[in-house]
Amino acid sequence: MMPNSIRDIYRPSLSLLTDLYQITMAYGYWKTGSQNKQAMFQMFFRQLPFDGGFAIAAGLEALIDYVDGFTWSSEDLEFISSLKGNDGRPIVCNDFIRYLKTTPLRVSIDAVEEGCLVFPHEPLVRVTGPLLQCQLLETSLLNLMNFPTLIATKAARICLAAQGDRVLEFGLRRAQGVDGGVTASRSAFIGGVDGTSNLLAGYLYDIPVGGTHAHSWVMSFDSELEAFTKFASSMPGNSIFLVDTYNTIDGVKNAIKAGQWLKNNGHKLYGIRLDSGDLGYLSKQARLLLDDAGFEDTDIVGSNDLDEVQIANLKSAGAKISVWGVGTKLVTAHDSPALGGVYKLVAIRDDDSKAWRYKLKLSDQISKITTPGRQQIRRFMLNGEYAADMIFDELSPPSNGDVTIVDPADMTRRKKIISGTPYEDLLRPVVVEGKRVYDGGGVHRARQRCSDELSRLNESIKRIANPHSYPAGLELSLHERKAKMILELKGF
Amino acid sequence: MMPNSIRDIYRPSLSLLTDLYQITMAYGYWKTGSQNKQAMFQMFFRQLPFDGGFAIAAGLEALIDYVDGFTWSSEDLEFISSLKGNDGRPIVCNDFIRYLKTTPLRVSIDAVEEGCLVFPHEPLVRVTGPLLQCQLLETSLLNLMNFPTLIATKAARICLAAQGDRVLEFGLRRAQGVDGGVTASRSAFIGGVDGTSNLLAGYLYDIPVGGTHAHSWVMSFDSELEAFTKFASSMPGNSIFLVDTYNTIDGVKNAIKAGQWLKNNGHKLYGIRLDSGDLGYLSKQARLLLDDAGFEDTDIVGSNDLDEVQIANLKSAGAKISVWGVGTKLVTAHDSPALGGVYKLVAIRDDDSKAWRYKLKLSDQISKITTPGRQQIRRFMLNGEYAADMIFDELSPPSNGDVTIVDPADMTRRKKIISGTPYEDLLRPVVVEGKRVYDGGGVHRARQRCSDELSRLNESIKRIANPHSYPAGLELSLHERKAKMILELKGF
Repeated sequence: MMPNSIRDIYRPSLSLLTDLYQITMAYGYWKTGSQNKQAMFQMFFRQLPFDGGFAIAAGLEALIDYVDGFTWSSEDLEFISSLKGNDGRPIVCNDFIRYLKTTPLRVSIDAVEEGCLVFPHEPLVRVTGPLLQCQLLETSLLNLMNFPTLIATKAARICLAAQGDRVLEFGLRRAQGVDGGVTASRSAFIGGVDGTSNLLAGYLYDIPVGGTHAHSWVMSFDSELEAFTKFASSMPGNSIFLVDTYNTIDGVKNAIKAGQWLKNNGHKLYGIRLDSGDLGYLSKQARLLLDDAGFEDTDIVGSNDLDEVQIANLKSAGAKISVWGVGTKLVTAHDSPALGGVYKLVAIRDDDSKAWRYKLKLSDQISKITTPGRQQIRRFMLNGEYAADMIFDELSPPSNGDVTIVDPADMTRRKKIISGTPYEDLLRPVVVEGKRVYDGGGVHRARQRCSDELSRLNESIKRIANPHSYPAGLELSLHERKAKMILELKGF
Repeated sequence: MMPNSIRDIYRPSLSLLTDLYQITMAYGYWKTGSQNKQAMFQMFFRQLPFDGGFAIAAGLEALIDYVDGFTWSSEDLEFISSLKGNDGRPIVCNDFIRYLKTTPLRVSIDAVEEGCLVFPHEPLVRVTGPLLQCQLLETSLLNLMNFPTLIATKAARICLAAQGDRVLEFGLRRAQGVDGGVTASRSAFIGGVDGTSNLLAGYLYDIPVGGTHAHSWVMSFDSELEAFTKFASSMPGNSIFLVDTYNTIDGVKNAIKAGQWLKNNGHKLYGIRLDSGDLGYLSKQARLLLDDAGFEDTDIVGSNDLDEVQIANLKSAGAKISVWGVGTKLVTAHDSPALGGVYKLVAIRDDDSKAWRYKLKLSDQISKITTPGRQQIRRFMLNGEYAADMIFDELSPPSNGDVTIVDPADMTRRKKIISGTPYEDLLRPVVVEGKRVYDGGGVHRARQRCSDELSRLNESIKRIANPHSYPAGLELSLHERKAKMILELKGF
């Protein structure tokens, strides 16, 4: 079986992948007897990355694996025992260690599937269970969700800019760490890229791998032409030549000579790659030379610090590039390298109570105030396009009939959806009592989902620059409850 | 024994952590019989990140581990066998797989130690050995070096801005992947931060861990005061209160009340944390309230998307923050999230020849042209300060006497160093014939090295904005050889 779990990359226990304060809070909950209060936390972000119009959820598979396989190794627990507070004394006691060791995770998780469109303030993940355990998961959950969602979104933008041309991800060498690369390759594939140069990602996730050769191949021979012909004769089925080691136009001519050898021997010149200089000008020159020599089918691969903005510019300048190699700026999400996803308590109840008490965090900025309640996303559809998203409270859902959606950042911006409009609710159970209950179908399925989702989003929202804003907001009664709670907490 | 190797985090074999084209080139070298040509590659970067004046080398320990433990698992080789070219046929043949399986890594590596200052065009790592094997290491080497060097540099800048105040790294939740977090914590510690919130990094690398509590702790109780007193009674030795869940000033007052309980019971209020709002104004208000109540020793921890620029601004505005919590902007190197390190062939020789042939890659931009030769860095010292770095060719070192250093980006900028000036040569052997021969002394030693190095760097070069440029360039005869080769290759 093909491995495809984060446990196939990492050491068996990643339970220490968390902030110290999750342990101290867990200890506090346990000491104060509130460890089994039932809590509800939600993960969401407040702002779309890249000044874009949408985001693509990703990371859920790793999160489910993490939770499903959660265990404390004896080394983990020994390490926690050894932690000292500011007073130099152990932070936690042995009874607490025993408690951790003997208490399996019993949280349940509902989540948006990988590859789905998501918007600000929408819960991507909702965790319900014992307060202590929900708290413990905060850091790892955010780490496992924020980055993949960021990269899937960046990749989707890049693929939109490429307008159907093939896009390959080449970023491993400048990625932020080992799985900064591997996870980026996986997430970029979900977002729409066609393949990666990263073999480990190809192996782990069954993603197509591709590539050419480096300048060093050319430099290791006495001449560029020798380098190309040697490459061609070694791997005739794989001939894509990097032409800019010395002079790009000469390089194209040498590639054509090697291509003629390939042709004469029953093979094909699959492509050339431009990796520096003015890609617009050079690609047009290269196209002319290739076409003149009868290599109309030969791809021109363009690379060199590309992102969606540069690809869009090159496309509109008529660049003759048919395959885009995107590296650093994709895998690091260069212009916006962190998604600000947060994980907030939204409701709590005593273990023996049926009634949830809603929770809300204040802030001077309205967008930083959390929304209370067990939130679900309802996505409405009109004429084959997504019309609006409504965040509503499953504990007090809206009554039948028309509904009103209120922008969380501006309560005067509202949208009415008439009764009977078709919809889908996005959060679905993925973990119940600590165990996986969901099969997402893997990365290829998630990629298809992303493609389907984007096809139902209006063009104006997919625009790279200054996109239209998709209506995603709070159901009216949820908005009203939130406003009431804010005013109460502020003493009005 | 404390684990401290990347093999303790990851699966046993990371040999697939590379780009496909390294495999196709390796296959090409093998097919053309050039696999055992002796090659020399160097890793360097062309530009300092963050518009700064220096960089701090990091990542070497992981690289040595990677090379020393390099092995192909049977799954790795099966996967490589299964790879198909553009023509749908297997890229490599079984004899090549057998060759990989039975040929241990025999590369030797010289490198700059972790924690050392490095500058553009200086080789951080130099790999010598069979062409095929040197090539194979390119991607993983860059992945393992680029990111740690970036983060150690960012951390050093942040610590300089904090002017001796304690700095804690809190970035795991928004890091780029699991070891985007873990490796960032390690690298940030080398760069000078005092601790991390990241337990896994603390465990793996013996880095001090620290932290407070989250808003959810406060929200899970009926009142903020109850939350603080419960925290204090649960962990009296660990009391640092986050005061901005509802209203910061009220929060400080509640922290003081809890602090009085602590004091009355023989404990201490270690700190409060401000995580939003105007940290300058709020920290001054908080300091007044704390001092008035007799809590002069209580730390004020400031956090909220901080970086070196904001810390410098807050310091100059007289903010009363004594501990800086830095997260996202440190661990993602937010304003410059990738170091553009490259790995270039600099010399080659036939297996039976003694004479190296120098290699150079052209480019329209002078800064992108590589420097040929077996390069070493000589760092000169004057009056207890570093005076200049000279990159010279060990195969034809400068003669005794005065030396001249030429700026690689501007051949008219030169510096003369008089004979007898004390110096140190920075690259030292770390791997010989595939096996580790170096003990860097771990992360604490690297951190000390960084601190020592920075203490010998002139203040003007350490400035956060518009720093003075440290003289680091090519020894005159190396510069002249390079210029001659460029002109020859360009046909002049």
